[in-house]
Amino acid sequence: MPREITAFSNPLIKYVRDLRDKRHRKAARQFLAEGLRILTEARETGRLPRTLFYAAASANHPLVHALSMDVEEAGGESIQTTPDILSKLSGKDNPQAVVGVFDEFDAALEDLDRTSAGIWLVAERLRDPGNLGTILRTGDAVGAGGLILIGESVDPFSVEAVRASMGALFTIPVVKTEWAPFEAWLRSGPGQLVGLSLDTETDYRAATYGAPTFLLTGNEAQGMPAEMAEGCDTLVKIPMLGKADSLNAAVATAVMAYEVLAQQR
Amino acid sequence: MPREITAFSNPLIKYVRDLRDKRHRKAARQFLAEGLRILTEARETGRLPRTLFYAAASANHPLVHALSMDVEEAGGESIQTTPDILSKLSGKDNPQAVVGVFDEFDAALEDLDRTSAGIWLVAERLRDPGNLGTILRTGDAVGAGGLILIGESVDPFSVEAVRASMGALFTIPVVKTEWAPFEAWLRSGPGQLVGLSLDTETDYRAATYGAPTFLLTGNEAQGMPAEMAEGCDTLVKIPMLGKADSLNAAVATAVMAYEVLAQQR
Repeated sequence: MPREITAFSNPLIKYVRDLRDKRHRKAARQFLAEGLRILTEARETGRLPRTLFYAAASANHPLVHALSMDVEEAGGESIQTTPDILSKLSGKDNPQAVVGVFDEFDAALEDLDRTSAGIWLVAERLRDPGNLGTILRTGDAVGAGGLILIGESVDPFSVEAVRASMGALFTIPVVKTEWAPFEAWLRSGPGQLVGLSLDTETDYRAATYGAPTFLLTGNEAQGMPAEMAEGCDTLVKIPMLGKADSLNAAVATAVMAYEVLAQQR
Repeated sequence: MPREITAFSNPLIKYVRDLRDKRHRKAARQFLAEGLRILTEARETGRLPRTLFYAAASANHPLVHALSMDVEEAGGESIQTTPDILSKLSGKDNPQAVVGVFDEFDAALEDLDRTSAGIWLVAERLRDPGNLGTILRTGDAVGAGGLILIGESVDPFSVEAVRASMGALFTIPVVKTEWAPFEAWLRSGPGQLVGLSLDTETDYRAATYGAPTFLLTGNEAQGMPAEMAEGCDTLVKIPMLGKADSLNAAVATAVMAYEVLAQQR
């Protein structure tokens, strides 16, 4: 018989609510993911929440039921609750049917098999969680091997990033590292590093992208430092016909990634 | 001598703060835009704020000074204020140097000259303001003639949309309409309507995009209704190699728009 929580004052509700805050999240090494689609994606990749909250009205939904059973079987806890409490946990007026509390996970450069994919995404000092999640979602779509975050980056486990990733956070490895160890790892095996830049004459459609190609996108406001631009094998630019001088970082990454995909298919 | 406001209790501050709320914005038919980059973009297209707020510390910045002079000359008001009040107006801890209050503007289908551009963006029931702004920013970059919003859409003048557009709201016409008048207008002249769909075998790279091409992107969650899909000249799909079945709407629009641009150049 699953546990039921209907009181806002329950300490577990406060604990989970606080996971929306980075400081609490980092101390607990746990994070929130919401929605049946994302949690089902997670389940299919073998990741189950430690704690699952679901609305009483959703208890008989086959996917909610399956999730709930798997969570209990794995030693986690499945908790039936009210729409109001789900709203509070998700921070939205129209809460998702399920909210899960997951243990954080991570990957290291050494865990990556660069021959497993033709496209790898690399982002430098990414600061917007929506961009990070959207880049992961695109990475899933192009079959990218992983996302490598260089330098001080927004937290991939923030609620906004998880939400924008639409579940790709669970399907694509994310590595957090710095430029020097990344460059050392990159040069220890095959692969070209292609940087998106405004300071080049090479159109992104004119370059050739073998496998594996590592696509480097710079910081949203400042682009990438000179050191990194110099470390690239190729710099390419996306044409800008209007008044603005840059695209949104997630958009630029996607336009590039689909060009690489088209060449490699 | 410019006016100075240093008191939070000033009624103008409350009025401007309330423009962040859709109901107030629609009643006032005015909206907020923030940041020197966006306001300078607006100025270059001939749009000046009715009221300009700037931090005392920025008063001597040449672009702030130029903006301020132009606003006064056009009969508007330029107001020096404190960082705290700018924070309150912009809703951000690190406020922009300038915040402007603009009159809303709009365009009708009849205002558009379809022969003036090879690419036109059309979005149906777009619901996320960040996506709308990002699509405008991409539209600027590919030289799109305008953005046509079909059905109940998020407000292009919301703070988030204006911010994500990075100024493109001022450079690209936005038309709000419904499917029937859009279809009638479309068929009254040259141009093909290309819809992004999951229910087609045609790869987006295999289709041919003459000028003008109208790119139709469906609602983020539901895609486009059957009626609209049937009204398209061509349906195309973007390959999805991963677990997810769709891209972010702004990303999908950009990948499509850059393919059209590449073919038309």
